[in-house]
Amino acid sequence: MRADGVCDGDLTLHYREYMMHEPSRAQKALEPVRPFSTIERDSVYRAIKERRDVRDQFLPTPVPDDVMMRLLSAAHNAPSVGFMQPWNFLVVRDPQRRERAWEIFNNANQEAAEMFSGDRKQSYQSLKLEGIRKAPVNLIVTCDRNRGGPVILGRTHNKQMDIYSAVCAVQNLWLAARAEGIGVGWVSIFEDASMRTLFGIPDDIEIIAYLCIGYVDTLYNEPELAAKGWRQRLKLEELIFSEEWGRASSA
Amino acid sequence: MRADGVCDGDLTLHYREYMMHEPSRAQKALEPVRPFSTIERDSVYRAIKERRDVRDQFLPTPVPDDVMMRLLSAAHNAPSVGFMQPWNFLVVRDPQRRERAWEIFNNANQEAAEMFSGDRKQSYQSLKLEGIRKAPVNLIVTCDRNRGGPVILGRTHNKQMDIYSAVCAVQNLWLAARAEGIGVGWVSIFEDASMRTLFGIPDDIEIIAYLCIGYVDTLYNEPELAAKGWRQRLKLEELIFSEEWGRASSA
Repeated sequence: MRADGVCDGDLTLHYREYMMHEPSRAQKALEPVRPFSTIERDSVYRAIKERRDVRDQFLPTPVPDDVMMRLLSAAHNAPSVGFMQPWNFLVVRDPQRRERAWEIFNNANQEAAEMFSGDRKQSYQSLKLEGIRKAPVNLIVTCDRNRGGPVILGRTHNKQMDIYSAVCAVQNLWLAARAEGIGVGWVSIFEDASMRTLFGIPDDIEIIAYLCIGYVDTLYNEPELAAKGWRQRLKLEELIFSEEWGRASSA
Repeated sequence: MRADGVCDGDLTLHYREYMMHEPSRAQKALEPVRPFSTIERDSVYRAIKERRDVRDQFLPTPVPDDVMMRLLSAAHNAPSVGFMQPWNFLVVRDPQRRERAWEIFNNANQEAAEMFSGDRKQSYQSLKLEGIRKAPVNLIVTCDRNRGGPVILGRTHNKQMDIYSAVCAVQNLWLAARAEGIGVGWVSIFEDASMRTLFGIPDDIEIIAYLCIGYVDTLYNEPELAAKGWRQRLKLEELIFSEEWGRASSA
């Protein structure tokens, strides 16, 4: 609590301590860049290219605690606006609770199917869109919008930046999981209020992602929705503009 | 345009073609997982751990077109809801345009400084929060919320999913950039309307991220805001819950 009554996690104190005791910490923290070798660089691209949204390939093999901690640590290393680190990670393994989460998905998914018509509806209904019960671990990633007080460096002009930080944490975890041989599927088809009630998530905490997590021994070599004919990859070149909106780029 | 007048990018046609001509594409696309070797896995974690939000370490060295395309390809390989791929990439190199973008930042940043008080305001004003003019490349990542028609698989119950997809694209690019020896800084302090006008971005396109991109030869070995005493890293263990909100996890 600051003298002016604004709670900011005692950061003014931190700043004073820094100025008094660690005048050169910032200087010492700036180090020469160690380049990535070719195989290191290629490995990052490999994880990016081979990452898939997994719905059905989960094995029942338990995910050990130390592996789960590596994945969560990858998430925790995401960028965050004003170093706010607004995320929490709710790990769900209990089969009964996952069954109830699946029911919440299933209700919403039936509503969703009704929003399509004809062949498209038939196609939608043929797709498996989650692995809530099959994946041994479910993970809810949230965003605490009040963490660090009301004024956050970098969020002053874009109030969504904390949400974006939590999404970056999801993507970090997803890529780390691919490197571990673990598949991840992002479930977005559910009523927020129902999921919130099931897991006791307070109203001021935003649910960002409901993830299904587990080892896999097969993966699609292209996005599953492309392989199954739902939608195809766009040409990257057509998505790039140069200097202003709509001006085609040569690169 | 479908028979019922809903534009969905001729995807019903795609589905029919798929059913008629490619009945086994999905089966063929499911392949055994190739594990990551130890060095490959460690490289992914290395990129995640060493990625920094860069504001001042940019070198003037040009970023070649082929490297830029690799970064954008990494972004384009992000997950997207319903395989919507809602992003565009606006590459800005023109120094005059970057100067004008910086002015937009600078106006907002002065407003932002006024939101802090005392030591905290002084500290805020001492931080360099962007590299718009110093980085040779700026990149605006956007989200086209209407791409693929009004009903998107997976966005039916969470309207923000397309935005989250575009954020995942940013994080993919950021990690790829680290592996290339390229720094990235995310600028969020600007008036949306001013930036939109400067680059001619239509009202129905959402600006997700304004990125500064360039080679670096030094990087902070911890988040710059931590090194400079603004805010410190939270303990991961305290952010993890088990089975329900607030229940401490042993793992």
